[in-house]
Amino acid sequence: MAVHRYLERYHPMEKRIHNFNAGPAALPKVVLEEMQASLLNYKGSGMSILEVSHRSRWFEEVLEDAKSRMKRLLNLDDRYHVLFVQGGASLQFCMVPMNLLPEAGLGDYVNTGIWSAAAIKEAKIQGKRVEVVASSEDRNFCYIPEKVPVHPHASYAHITSNNTIKGTQWPSFPDTGAVPLVADMSSDILSRHFDVAPFGLIYAGAQKNLGPAGVCVVILRSDMLERVPPGLPTMLKYTTYVEKNSMHNTPPCFAIYVVQLVCEWLEETVGGLDKVEALNREKARVLYELLDRGDFYRGTADRNSRSMMNVTFRLPTEELEKRFVAQAEQEGLGGLKGHRSVGGCRASLYNATGIEAVRDLVSFMENFAAKNG
Amino acid sequence: MAVHRYLERYHPMEKRIHNFNAGPAALPKVVLEEMQASLLNYKGSGMSILEVSHRSRWFEEVLEDAKSRMKRLLNLDDRYHVLFVQGGASLQFCMVPMNLLPEAGLGDYVNTGIWSAAAIKEAKIQGKRVEVVASSEDRNFCYIPEKVPVHPHASYAHITSNNTIKGTQWPSFPDTGAVPLVADMSSDILSRHFDVAPFGLIYAGAQKNLGPAGVCVVILRSDMLERVPPGLPTMLKYTTYVEKNSMHNTPPCFAIYVVQLVCEWLEETVGGLDKVEALNREKARVLYELLDRGDFYRGTADRNSRSMMNVTFRLPTEELEKRFVAQAEQEGLGGLKGHRSVGGCRASLYNATGIEAVRDLVSFMENFAAKNG
Repeated sequence: MAVHRYLERYHPMEKRIHNFNAGPAALPKVVLEEMQASLLNYKGSGMSILEVSHRSRWFEEVLEDAKSRMKRLLNLDDRYHVLFVQGGASLQFCMVPMNLLPEAGLGDYVNTGIWSAAAIKEAKIQGKRVEVVASSEDRNFCYIPEKVPVHPHASYAHITSNNTIKGTQWPSFPDTGAVPLVADMSSDILSRHFDVAPFGLIYAGAQKNLGPAGVCVVILRSDMLERVPPGLPTMLKYTTYVEKNSMHNTPPCFAIYVVQLVCEWLEETVGGLDKVEALNREKARVLYELLDRGDFYRGTADRNSRSMMNVTFRLPTEELEKRFVAQAEQEGLGGLKGHRSVGGCRASLYNATGIEAVRDLVSFMENFAAKNG
Repeated sequence: MAVHRYLERYHPMEKRIHNFNAGPAALPKVVLEEMQASLLNYKGSGMSILEVSHRSRWFEEVLEDAKSRMKRLLNLDDRYHVLFVQGGASLQFCMVPMNLLPEAGLGDYVNTGIWSAAAIKEAKIQGKRVEVVASSEDRNFCYIPEKVPVHPHASYAHITSNNTIKGTQWPSFPDTGAVPLVADMSSDILSRHFDVAPFGLIYAGAQKNLGPAGVCVVILRSDMLERVPPGLPTMLKYTTYVEKNSMHNTPPCFAIYVVQLVCEWLEETVGGLDKVEALNREKARVLYELLDRGDFYRGTADRNSRSMMNVTFRLPTEELEKRFVAQAEQEGLGGLKGHRSVGGCRASLYNATGIEAVRDLVSFMENFAAKNG
């Protein structure tokens, strides 16, 4: 066994690692501890939160609190509904055009990587008319397109706000005029401020910044509901989730409970979105500064398109990358392998990953470069 | 505060109640304890099971173990796939006809209550040809039809094996000849033995006998895959789940983990399906015997259609029913209110509810009847 020196410094008892997984990802330790403490008896109910009825006062409070906190954190006005849907962002790839893109309509899509392409594919499968109005495929998705020439008559313009695999992120959102933006924000929701007004719909699989895998948060502007065509299956239309308060059938209660706890932590422990954005900017700054310092590590994204959430980089050889990931793991720095589709290395710096984890990573990377450079 | 006498007898420290919820429902205490113990550090990974990657060895082991145990418990041969799908049984109401009922085909359905009716509705929404070949609607769904005259050319015959709301359960399954059975077994899967061979597909929301809300187990016979039409959205076709081992996108990892633990408990602590079936029969016998003993309590289901899982009954007046539910709750017997659509009382006796809980319930009911009868 290697010496877990970072582990022992920070978590002498539990041997928790610094978790740089891309998702499912790190959760705040206090959230895990809160869950742990109440796992056999939630708030004096005599039941686990896993065992209470979704129609009970206990769960209804969880649901309402999760919604309220999400609304406050994102500064949502009354036009916006917060919905909890199963199936992940991948089901939204299908539900978005099914609900919001009429047969005669046109869906504008920006292609910034694998997840954008998957969203485009699911719209096309349904025979919907789709146009890719901007793309960064020409340079292997290493940047965010600057110009997004949406069609003024388009039903919506779809973007992926942060590209987990390629390590790019929209620095600001494109001006689409009257055309509503629709965004997959799975990997950067609640990481920074943005103006929600241009968005007709936002969706985010929880397993990065919000909680565990198993629930997708959908933020829907109410005028979008007018587009939902008749005759859709009940579980696939947004109106069901709005009308039934995400409880047409038993919702994924535990995942929603964790989302609630994470939002509570974000508001009350971290201190809100301003604070977490500042922390996220600092974490990213520290790591990118290291990448830019020499030529051992090489960031894969263009500088002005770099993601604060997923820092992707290469080492001089694949052999070194393998050694880097393995040695980091031995030192208690986990999840640094790049996505299996692109290789290389990736450090995901979601909200729950603290600045001390990033500093330890940088320190490890400095040593590794010194020994192997 | 009332004296929690049952509580103090069985759980002096934690004040856990006897949980008769219909779903989400009781989980085995040892399963909750196992989760609790490893919540911050799963098997030495330094991460919570909520934080590990779904592509990691830790989660892959969970998934494979859950599948293997399910196959052993249900005695499934190699023709059967065990899939994990989000969206609950309600999404299966839509996926079943979408995948297995061709445009020119005919779906035979048996209507034994609210959930059957919902399954029928979702098939009709898609414009599929559906026939209700048997129904118990004439007597408010208080029985299971004896004759099920399926059409020999039907694509499948759909049944709801246990009716959570009405408290009825198929005592044995109908002979449908060459027509594959499709069953919603959400509320009685793994509660008793049955021969899986006539079934083309079985689905079960986990939140009753299998684990928490947030995952639906689908058991699919491989010949059904030949029917899946081209052009379905990726997340809505069974082939995706088979080809990608339920990991096309991030699965609901935590819910699958709990299913694994529950199956482990069932195999290794309880001793398998024979044992749990014997326990379930005894639990139901004890409670129905009380109902039949006098005329204070009145079971709502016909005797030969009674469910072992959900025992539904009425008291002489609605006023008494309210008092019964409230007083029971004060005594540490929770979840006895009937479904909001039918009223009355209901005790759900899923696998994780022990015989001692049923004995305490019976004792409470005897006292309540003596005082109020």
